[in-house]
Amino acid sequence: MLHPGQTIGILGGGQLARMMALAAAPLGLKCHIYAPAGDNPAFDVSAGATQAAYDDEQALAAFAAAVSVVTYEFENVPAATADFLAQRVPVLPGPRALAVTQDRLTEKTFLRDIGLETPAFRAVDDLASLEAAVAAMGRPAVLKTRRFGYDGKGQAAIRPETDLAEAWKSVGEQPSILESFVPFLREVSVVAARGRDGDVVAYDVCENEHRHHILAVTRVPATLQGEASHAALEHAARIATELDYVGVLAVEMFVVAEADGRERVLINEIAPRVHNSGHWTQDGADTSQFEQHVRAVAGWPLGSARRRGTVTMHNLIGDEADQWHAFLVEPGAHLHLYGKAEARPGRKMGHVNRVTPE
Amino acid sequence: MLHPGQTIGILGGGQLARMMALAAAPLGLKCHIYAPAGDNPAFDVSAGATQAAYDDEQALAAFAAAVSVVTYEFENVPAATADFLAQRVPVLPGPRALAVTQDRLTEKTFLRDIGLETPAFRAVDDLASLEAAVAAMGRPAVLKTRRFGYDGKGQAAIRPETDLAEAWKSVGEQPSILESFVPFLREVSVVAARGRDGDVVAYDVCENEHRHHILAVTRVPATLQGEASHAALEHAARIATELDYVGVLAVEMFVVAEADGRERVLINEIAPRVHNSGHWTQDGADTSQFEQHVRAVAGWPLGSARRRGTVTMHNLIGDEADQWHAFLVEPGAHLHLYGKAEARPGRKMGHVNRVTPE
Repeated sequence: MLHPGQTIGILGGGQLARMMALAAAPLGLKCHIYAPAGDNPAFDVSAGATQAAYDDEQALAAFAAAVSVVTYEFENVPAATADFLAQRVPVLPGPRALAVTQDRLTEKTFLRDIGLETPAFRAVDDLASLEAAVAAMGRPAVLKTRRFGYDGKGQAAIRPETDLAEAWKSVGEQPSILESFVPFLREVSVVAARGRDGDVVAYDVCENEHRHHILAVTRVPATLQGEASHAALEHAARIATELDYVGVLAVEMFVVAEADGRERVLINEIAPRVHNSGHWTQDGADTSQFEQHVRAVAGWPLGSARRRGTVTMHNLIGDEADQWHAFLVEPGAHLHLYGKAEARPGRKMGHVNRVTPE
Repeated sequence: MLHPGQTIGILGGGQLARMMALAAAPLGLKCHIYAPAGDNPAFDVSAGATQAAYDDEQALAAFAAAVSVVTYEFENVPAATADFLAQRVPVLPGPRALAVTQDRLTEKTFLRDIGLETPAFRAVDDLASLEAAVAAMGRPAVLKTRRFGYDGKGQAAIRPETDLAEAWKSVGEQPSILESFVPFLREVSVVAARGRDGDVVAYDVCENEHRHHILAVTRVPATLQGEASHAALEHAARIATELDYVGVLAVEMFVVAEADGRERVLINEIAPRVHNSGHWTQDGADTSQFEQHVRAVAGWPLGSARRRGTVTMHNLIGDEADQWHAFLVEPGAHLHLYGKAEARPGRKMGHVNRVTPE
């Protein structure tokens, strides 16, 4: 268990690390950010900063010596980096969570093995296996690289007219997974935390609206039938427990309708970290997901996930952040800017939370 | 007007500067702390830090060149420092606020001149003038140095039995002020902000309980009759406007009872900065005093000061902060630790806000 005054090391220097550091400070904990060269806005709010590559063992060793626990803001931490650090200092969430979630095939296989439902899927290792998978599963379907995909990158839709050889080229001919296309009603997610003591606390189910594969809006509570909502929360707790997880994770799900109108959730993806669909908790819940994650990795008791009203979170993408002044004067709006130097198109620059007491 | 990405310079590296920096970050503003050597927990959450003396002109010039506006966490900024900086970059609150509030005699004279009531007072420059003042005003009374007093330092009670020569020695034989002792019912304060456009937004009146001259507890709303409450808010707005003030200020007041039971407020002291009695706003108001101060000095519109319930703020003094773990699990409690290295007796180490929705 950490004590106030000790330091949490964070791999990655973007907005998620930044908001973790801002949440750690009132708890008396310092943060030390480790990130490669680039725009690292988390450096601006942290006591320590190391700018180095993830394979720089000298820098990693010094980093490990300077902190009491290591966590991360993204799931693509190289396994070698995580292993090197874990020999010196606790790394949380642990190596199993990283190993499972870095690979879509491993992740979906894990979910199937613990009895949770996902879209149908098949491994694709070459054009022949892609052709066999499409023949078996039908179209439409989605081809995704097993590793390093996010915000729609490394994906190709397989439509009736799609040329499979071209699709295979478009994902870089990398080890992939074919997933059946799910005609979903809505996308939802559950953001939950698991403490070092095994305690799990989940926030209410969120409803997410994506534009161009990037999250645009989160609404809480989600429009979702009670039974499906209950199942969604149970699934997230189950995943956290099966992974012996410590920290905040997000489970993204599709809502589908049965013939009789009953709603059911299928699991799309696990993010082993604080998540964009949990940003609403900063103003809309008793404890933010960032504080919750800090508490968990520090070995502290989790806080209350009670919701404070009906909440929406709007991402500010690219030049949408230029409207910052309007949000300052809007009643009930809470502005969160990430301090990034350049507003490139498609880049997440900030978000606005709006809370309406119920 | 500042834009996101620009930098606010803050003189002083303690908890008030730290909480300002934590509030500036979500608005996309960077902070640069300037403080002499010592325990400066604000350094841990700020993009820039200069550790130098307040008379180091080379360091001050570099600091001024690195920031877009300068503010401060304490009223005893040396006038020469403020003047040096003000020639290079806006300093807010402005020089007049500092000049008036650094000197108890100037401050009380200012208040009297704008028609606001304070305890009776007289200047004391030597033992003879102390004797004359006591003869005129009677006992009990309080002798206070004109400058550099805080948390009860530089004060001596003049009781019936007090030897005046000893009292004069005990305050260091410095230019002082004798104030009549006010048999107050309660101590209250008003925390208010004034924007660069002259807009004033005040939080609800707070009730403050001191122990050993150090603030122990703030309760909001204060127990105070409606008319006195209204007057208290008006006084604070009046002071801010008369000083052409920009930023957050706190006005400490005594509540006294008339013979007919009506309550009235007398002004005790002005703090030209964010104030301990406003810490409750972090969890108990729509906009914290720290964000409000940042908005004001950035030239931005002020936020809503709406209260979110009945709020108490308990300071964690010295080893009271050792109970941090208990506050983590207490429903409705919000812990704020300052990241100070050493918990000396009497030192403010953190605070806990408790909010009960009304």
